[in-house]
Amino acid sequence: MTQLSEFEMIKRYFDTPVSTPFVALGIGDDCAVLTPTAGKQLLVSTDMLNEGRHFTLDALPEWIAQKALAVNLSDLAACGATPKAFFLSIGLPKELATDEWLAPFAQSLHSLANKYGCALAGGDTTRSEELTISITVLGESPAPLLRSGAKAGDMVWVSGTLGDAALGLALTKGEHHNLNLSDSQLAHARQRLHTPSPRVKLGIALRGLATSCVDVSDGLAGDLLHLLKASDVDAVIDVDALPMSPALRVAQDAGIDVMAYALSGGDDYELLFTAPASARQAVIDAAASVGVAVTPIGSVAECATVLPALQFCDDKGEPWLYNGKGYEHF
Amino acid sequence: MTQLSEFEMIKRYFDTPVSTPFVALGIGDDCAVLTPTAGKQLLVSTDMLNEGRHFTLDALPEWIAQKALAVNLSDLAACGATPKAFFLSIGLPKELATDEWLAPFAQSLHSLANKYGCALAGGDTTRSEELTISITVLGESPAPLLRSGAKAGDMVWVSGTLGDAALGLALTKGEHHNLNLSDSQLAHARQRLHTPSPRVKLGIALRGLATSCVDVSDGLAGDLLHLLKASDVDAVIDVDALPMSPALRVAQDAGIDVMAYALSGGDDYELLFTAPASARQAVIDAAASVGVAVTPIGSVAECATVLPALQFCDDKGEPWLYNGKGYEHF
Repeated sequence: MTQLSEFEMIKRYFDTPVSTPFVALGIGDDCAVLTPTAGKQLLVSTDMLNEGRHFTLDALPEWIAQKALAVNLSDLAACGATPKAFFLSIGLPKELATDEWLAPFAQSLHSLANKYGCALAGGDTTRSEELTISITVLGESPAPLLRSGAKAGDMVWVSGTLGDAALGLALTKGEHHNLNLSDSQLAHARQRLHTPSPRVKLGIALRGLATSCVDVSDGLAGDLLHLLKASDVDAVIDVDALPMSPALRVAQDAGIDVMAYALSGGDDYELLFTAPASARQAVIDAAASVGVAVTPIGSVAECATVLPALQFCDDKGEPWLYNGKGYEHF
Repeated sequence: MTQLSEFEMIKRYFDTPVSTPFVALGIGDDCAVLTPTAGKQLLVSTDMLNEGRHFTLDALPEWIAQKALAVNLSDLAACGATPKAFFLSIGLPKELATDEWLAPFAQSLHSLANKYGCALAGGDTTRSEELTISITVLGESPAPLLRSGAKAGDMVWVSGTLGDAALGLALTKGEHHNLNLSDSQLAHARQRLHTPSPRVKLGIALRGLATSCVDVSDGLAGDLLHLLKASDVDAVIDVDALPMSPALRVAQDAGIDVMAYALSGGDDYELLFTAPASARQAVIDAAASVGVAVTPIGSVAECATVLPALQFCDDKGEPWLYNGKGYEHF
């Protein structure tokens, strides 16, 4: 396996033609030259992924690339932004500076980027002991969706299903080895862990409908609390309404505390958003138009105390509490 | 030394008030919301610095912060852009997640950023084994200065002095321990290595005057070749005209090959630019208006072959050649 120089790496894998008016000049000068669209706001997010913490080196290079870009695109999705360009900085151990590792990494990166019209406009490559990937994404929107717009009376919605990545992680660690999942259920949990799909199209479809939005990266409970705090409101979530995949239902039937996965698992990269009750059908239609399932899971209330409160109930309205390990009746 | 959580770190050191209309919303949501100025182009650059490669952990935290931001601002300077905002991703070993390390790091970072009105608009903090800092800077310009505009007949200029950081690095490694530098000369070489000053104001002052520009980060010879290639021109550089500090002159008198430091040393972060001969006085005046010395060091010629050629001569016009270790007469 031949090690590539920085120049060869960039030339072979990253300096690809860009054909969007947003990127007037991409890789090759001291800076990229971008042309923001008049009247739009620019949304920017950055996430760094480190070996050992966000992935292990037994992860396939195509998974690592997809996840690194997807978690950034998910931040744009949460703001309802249209992806425009991204910048990739990569600290690469010398044993990975090979065609064998870089070819699938770059192919996966460009494939996801192209899907959303997000051009690789620049970056940096450096040698490091541990693999480190830092991506900065830029998107545009006429009116960004923020965490701070939720109003009392709004419904709380979430896209897709929750807890799958947490189940996938547990399986990867060798837990639940007696769990009787079908091949497709197993593949689903692993796919959600390793190659999450950013809800970019849903975020755009929710412009003008949702009053607030956040992406679920650290678990629904924690991310919803961020939203409630930013909006200065309370919320009640019906735990029986939380959308779960067939894989998670099998795990639940086997006695696994899937509620903890769904509420605190992390890495779901679904959109958690609020919208007026009057917009219920419009939300369903918007989500259907981009082929994403959305589920109403609760409601927003006036902030009753000085701190935003997140409460849980079951489908009969009985309260639930977090017991330190998972959520249960009290 | 108490280790800080990610939340505490951000709150205490990075979530500082931002007061620029460019940053409509900074840290706290999924994305930063920026408002690009109508009619301006957006310049973006990103650089990653890794422990071991770009600095060692015996470097002071304030040096590391200054260098990480300065190398990025230097890319904006090379494009004549006004710095607007930056994003910081930091992979932090747990022993550095302390007030003792973060306070001087953040103080130095904000100090340099404030000097140029560049707001910290977002970022990411993560735990890692090795210290890794990835910064993305955004700036604006009505007409960016690029590497590609040099024309035959232009003069080649460089700001400040060359080779100081390379001398500083050699001294840090224990080389030249018999060199008789004054305290201020020693301090100068170390300052140039550890806390480079980006030539932001010079870049802006050169708008409409310079025909091309690049920052000298990898050594004058290599960076000039990038510029020549982008502009499809040749150049002849007078090695006797290369600006050197008193520290470098002392080293030269002691027999050290300072020409190699000046031409291939790297980490100078000066601006290397071209301008029409007719703009000579205007260039001198523009540089003087921002308090930076600039020196004419050569001239641009038509590309004589299929590849851009960089030639060296002395002040009598006699040719010089690089011999693999340094540059000398042939």
